[in-house]
Amino acid sequence: MTPPQADRRGLLIILSSPSGAGKSTLARRLMAWDETLQFSVSATTREPRPGEVNEKDYFFVGEAEFRKWVAEGRMLEHAHVFGNFYGSPQPPVETAIEAGRDVLFDIDWQGAQQIRNSALGPYTLSIFILPPSIAELHRRLVNRGQDDAETIAKRMQKSWDEISHWDGYDYVLINDDLDETEEKLKTIIKAERLKFAQQPRLSDHVRALQSQFEDLT
Amino acid sequence: MTPPQADRRGLLIILSSPSGAGKSTLARRLMAWDETLQFSVSATTREPRPGEVNEKDYFFVGEAEFRKWVAEGRMLEHAHVFGNFYGSPQPPVETAIEAGRDVLFDIDWQGAQQIRNSALGPYTLSIFILPPSIAELHRRLVNRGQDDAETIAKRMQKSWDEISHWDGYDYVLINDDLDETEEKLKTIIKAERLKFAQQPRLSDHVRALQSQFEDLT
Repeated sequence: MTPPQADRRGLLIILSSPSGAGKSTLARRLMAWDETLQFSVSATTREPRPGEVNEKDYFFVGEAEFRKWVAEGRMLEHAHVFGNFYGSPQPPVETAIEAGRDVLFDIDWQGAQQIRNSALGPYTLSIFILPPSIAELHRRLVNRGQDDAETIAKRMQKSWDEISHWDGYDYVLINDDLDETEEKLKTIIKAERLKFAQQPRLSDHVRALQSQFEDLT
Repeated sequence: MTPPQADRRGLLIILSSPSGAGKSTLARRLMAWDETLQFSVSATTREPRPGEVNEKDYFFVGEAEFRKWVAEGRMLEHAHVFGNFYGSPQPPVETAIEAGRDVLFDIDWQGAQQIRNSALGPYTLSIFILPPSIAELHRRLVNRGQDDAETIAKRMQKSWDEISHWDGYDYVLINDDLDETEEKLKTIIKAERLKFAQQPRLSDHVRALQSQFEDLT
């Protein structure tokens, strides 16, 4: 069965930020706002944390399987962080964008860079979320109560590493206020959907105008 | 007196379309929507039409003066159309964007191209408005009742010439419905204002985060 041709190709919408800047909350709100959005579930070799659900939070896979996916070109991007592999499986993304559905990625700067440099680069919209302050990030990591001081220091270093790559993104937002940032994200996504490259039907429309003009003259 | 530093540099917002596609109405609505927007009043050597007001609809100038402005580099763009010169004076635009005000241009593809290729190119947002049909454009020209058949044919040719340059723009909208197109324009302008290049204060914010991070570690 041939799928119905989508009016436009889907976008790859990438959200990056240091952990604790509000990105996951914002991603959840965007998913609730637009049910046509598809979330890109990452694959990882790390152990599930309590409450995490396989295939919803992550595809939890073994290292051999992860490496096999990479070798077969089935990962859009992948990285090695704190001793574990993380990556975005390609097949669900391909299926979604061919059907005209946008896919939301919650990934770090390395993943964002790999996707931008891939064949899907022209179809990406990348947005970086900056925290209002470092103190706020630190407070959230401490309050989570999961990590010892050494791990927290390592995470803060990772956060700064992430922040230092802020300037490769299409848009950068300072998340002073979650509601405002949510509105800004929606505006950006709506505008991007109006972009020329996203609207193959424009070429058809101009061809129709041309033949109408030729009929007239 | 040093002017207050603007939070961001203003944008050059260019609207182009064949005449009769609704561009002037849309420009008027945008001006009513956002009073910080400044309209770029064109200069022209053509005679004023009944009801047109100097310095509001156009700067009506003689050919010698127009040529002098061009020679002095005081025109952002200019073109020769149907025996008359048209152009966008640069000084009011410079003043506005330095003060962080966006400037709206109602100009044709030649003017849009000249501005995009100028030093101000990186600060432009260009939007092309397509008509739903050629018949509609033709009807509006005939209904205006100002022109004979030959002039109408010439204007239709000019309209097609304009339409054929649709694909050099950042955004292209089909004006099926004025209200919808107005909403789309507002979304596009709001998103563009959030763009990285438009927000010099981001660099300051990241520098502040960096020093907070260094203080912490």
